[in-house]
Amino acid sequence: MELTRLISVLFFLLVITAGSSASPQHWRKKRVREPCKKLVFYFRDIIYNGHNSKNATSAIVGTPAWGNRTILAGQNHFGDLVVFDDPITLDNNLHSPPVGRAQGFYVYDKKEIFTAWLGFSFVFNSTHHRGSINFAGADPLMNKTRDISVIGGTGDFFMARGVATLSTDAFEGKVYFRLRADINLFECW
Amino acid sequence: MELTRLISVLFFLLVITAGSSASPQHWRKKRVREPCKKLVFYFRDIIYNGHNSKNATSAIVGTPAWGNRTILAGQNHFGDLVVFDDPITLDNNLHSPPVGRAQGFYVYDKKEIFTAWLGFSFVFNSTHHRGSINFAGADPLMNKTRDISVIGGTGDFFMARGVATLSTDAFEGKVYFRLRADINLFECW
Amino acid sequence: MELTRLISVLFFLLVITAGSSASPQHWRKKRVREPCKKLVFYFRDIIYNGHNSKNATSAIVGTPAWGNRTILAGQNHFGDLVVFDDPITLDNNLHSPPVGRAQGFYVYDKKEIFTAWLGFSFVFNSTHHRGSINFAGADPLMNKTRDISVIGGTGDFFMARGVATLSTDAFEGKVYFRLRADINLFECW
Repeated sequence: MELTRLISVLFFLLVITAGSSASPQHWRKKRVREPCKKLVFYFRDIIYNGHNSKNATSAIVGTPAWGNRTILAGQNHFGDLVVFDDPITLDNNLHSPPVGRAQGFYVYDKKEIFTAWLGFSFVFNSTHHRGSINFAGADPLMNKTRDISVIGGTGDFFMARGVATLSTDAFEGKVYFRLRADINLFECW
Repeated sequence: MELTRLISVLFFLLVITAGSSASPQHWRKKRVREPCKKLVFYFRDIIYNGHNSKNATSAIVGTPAWGNRTILAGQNHFGDLVVFDDPITLDNNLHSPPVGRAQGFYVYDKKEIFTAWLGFSFVFNSTHHRGSINFAGADPLMNKTRDISVIGGTGDFFMARGVATLSTDAFEGKVYFRLRADINLFECW
Repeated sequence: MELTRLISVLFFLLVITAGSSASPQHWRKKRVREPCKKLVFYFRDIIYNGHNSKNATSAIVGTPAWGNRTILAGQNHFGDLVVFDDPITLDNNLHSPPVGRAQGFYVYDKKEIFTAWLGFSFVFNSTHHRGSINFAGADPLMNKTRDISVIGGTGDFFMARGVATLSTDAFEGKVYFRLRADINLFECW
């Protein structure tokens, strides 16, 4: 009676437990798509154009045969490879103090439209954050939002994995733009 | 009697369950090496050589001091950095409609033999697939097959991790080649 | 009495088990930060300077407008992109036999100080190790130690994830350096 019912409940719980604990081994189960950490940052990029060496935060270092390194190439900049060291801020105010640096490269990789491939890190070394977040992925930059991968992290972001949604917050001509990065981590340690 | 036996069974199940559920925390246990998703694609690359701008899907944008950007460099192209935007197809028929684009870069990185390092994405935006798969890794391209890493994904391939096996399906001279990519994902969300 | 106590114990165990098995699904729980594999390697890099083609293991293949490809650029080499194929050894003895190759690229990415962004692989094909480890991340190389991400692996290092701590073991002038890599994997399959 009482006892039998209790045992039934126990058995039921056991089955539930066994079911959920088996899934991580096969990596098949849909896991909860809820971020374990959410972060928002802004970073801005000014490409060197031959006349702005003081303000420039990036430079063209590779171009196709038809390009040069002080002006973005024709055909939607296809082949231009840009190295950058951009200030990161917590909001989109130009005068906000940088909290870190976005460092790495991007390469324009389509002739018909603007699109790029990015490999870079957010590097932090302040009281807010210490460590780095590493990113890679395609950035079809004419889209309002586009997702790239968080492929790893160190320090405060040890072993992080997730998705960063980029959106162009502002731009002026071809050499200045500001991006907003909504970082959602789905693996936190 | 009956009851005692039932309790024994319960206890046995408990031990099993506890054992398997503890392992993911330590990441030590050999997990099942069975893909949660398998995909096969083909993509083809035509390097710009100064005369094929209409057909070319890629261009040399960096070379060592001894190279130039319209012909692959000596010493097994060591140092040549190529940016590409290649059509992806479901089979190796030249006339098959593209289902996406392979976008990114590779760099030849050995003097004695052909070998490369790749950073790129498969970008999909059709009814079949929407989202991207991001890759990185060494491609010793004289080997029949070589494995690179799936380092992340977005959209339909959200948070994907796995291994892609590349094989050269066809090539003509030095500027045209077609690769087959057997993608095996081992982490699916 | 006896029985009730036994059931209590069972129930207690159940709760524990259920608790631990639920965590992997949410990826929230702090997991044990103990490596499942530890490896130490050394690799050395000699940049081509126009006169050392025999010994050089790397070459500058991209530079900003103010640079050239046989000498590292001013402003802390900002924008110089270097492709490398460096021998890996088990210790820091120059005469030790290589056990693999470090292959990929790095780009200097700050004007005010030496710092770089790396994308590369350790490629092994011997009795010791077979397969590759793929790395990406920021390398603020004036720091005594700096952490980059292990973003994937193949063969013996199938699906590896972790952190590699780099330290400069030796350097001579601007074209030769040797790095020590302490690789700690936290996900092993």
